[in-house]
Amino acid sequence: MNIVLLGSGNVATQLGRAFKLAGQDIVQVWSRNIENARELADNLAAIAISDFDYLDRKADLYIISVKDEAINELAKELKVSDKLIVHTSGSTGMDMLEGSSSKFGVLYPLQTFSKSQMVDFRQIPFAIEGNTPEVASTIRAIADRLSERVVELSSEQRKALHIAAVFACNFSNHLYALSQELLKEQNLDFDLLRPLISETAAKVQSNDPHKMQTGPASRGDQETVEAHIELLKNNPEMQNLYQQLSQSIVNLQERSKG
Amino acid sequence: MNIVLLGSGNVATQLGRAFKLAGQDIVQVWSRNIENARELADNLAAIAISDFDYLDRKADLYIISVKDEAINELAKELKVSDKLIVHTSGSTGMDMLEGSSSKFGVLYPLQTFSKSQMVDFRQIPFAIEGNTPEVASTIRAIADRLSERVVELSSEQRKALHIAAVFACNFSNHLYALSQELLKEQNLDFDLLRPLISETAAKVQSNDPHKMQTGPASRGDQETVEAHIELLKNNPEMQNLYQQLSQSIVNLQERSKG
Repeated sequence: MNIVLLGSGNVATQLGRAFKLAGQDIVQVWSRNIENARELADNLAAIAISDFDYLDRKADLYIISVKDEAINELAKELKVSDKLIVHTSGSTGMDMLEGSSSKFGVLYPLQTFSKSQMVDFRQIPFAIEGNTPEVASTIRAIADRLSERVVELSSEQRKALHIAAVFACNFSNHLYALSQELLKEQNLDFDLLRPLISETAAKVQSNDPHKMQTGPASRGDQETVEAHIELLKNNPEMQNLYQQLSQSIVNLQERSKG
Repeated sequence: MNIVLLGSGNVATQLGRAFKLAGQDIVQVWSRNIENARELADNLAAIAISDFDYLDRKADLYIISVKDEAINELAKELKVSDKLIVHTSGSTGMDMLEGSSSKFGVLYPLQTFSKSQMVDFRQIPFAIEGNTPEVASTIRAIADRLSERVVELSSEQRKALHIAAVFACNFSNHLYALSQELLKEQNLDFDLLRPLISETAAKVQSNDPHKMQTGPASRGDQETVEAHIELLKNNPEMQNLYQQLSQSIVNLQERSKG
């Protein structure tokens, strides 16, 4: 399979590597910035382009992996009316590709990517969608080459999955970052929290998270909750988050009972 | 070393097991509820008591592992004026044990415990404190038998560490729980998020979390942030948290630049 990769960010980089490792040919890497295109293309033995005049219009698959707001415009520039075009965005509807080709869809890998950190694609869930059942089957077959966990979701489901991922991943990581700041004020090393973070994530791998909830709010220890809020008085941002999240823990417990 | 364990909750259970495995004798388990005391004592080949008249006052170490607000009162009931008494609470000052003995301190294991899940104590950080340098040394030597990561912290530092742990562990777990709720509304399985949760926790094991931050807020993708907030309109609690946490990510980025 010949693939053109449009984009050079974290997702494009990781997907390009994964397809290459799976034995697929990345023929071109496009980026608006030719230097960025070159950096990734060199790693994939592909040709770097930044001008659509040079686009290979005979490839089997065009993967658009750019900022959400650029997807629609970019798709129109491809002018490959009968070739398969997919985007990789969680929060963008499939309809953003409408009119760009007769075959289009979505190939959304649910993972937090950085350019340098290698990830095991076999375990990454892929949410796929196609504009026809046949296209969906084709995209599924493509995703199957990378991952054991391919699911077909509607755009609405995928958007909910993306929001859920923001909570479970982006916001969790931010809580780690805030806790590191708090430790720094007391000259304490973030390393103290690392085993706890690992264990917290490990516990929900085989359990429902609401059943694993521990801490002062969940055990109704109002004295400790209030002591913590008082101790955070010089940090209104964390104080506010502490209150809201503690209340939300109590609310969820009520919902689980009801 | 002969140990009396006061309490029968998650921390008492896990600490009791760990000391037992390290070759120490748990001679008694006290709980206000004798059934709870028995359940744990049976596992530790110890005697269960609920009445202080039967307390063994010749043990080497008394570990108070009960609710924070009960620590002070319980310590006074021990009447072991020259024996070492420690509590295991992150958010309670060492001074809560003042007057209960000439030797007292803190043995705080920083981990999220449940009764059933086994944990590797060697990697758990222990924050210790003693009322004299000699007592601190004794407590350190005791903690060293369980863990490779023993640090001496002041009560103020330990309280900050506990708050940081609430953010990094309890609140993160709650975000997992909220994301599961959101997925359920779309008939999606929480299993889809598990690899992402693992990877998010794994990334900060060797990196600073603020450098690992990904997602719409951190890349300034205001369009996606607003789309998510709109999609959460039927869930005011998550909508509010989404806004606050996204703003907090932006604020932290500003602080990191400055």
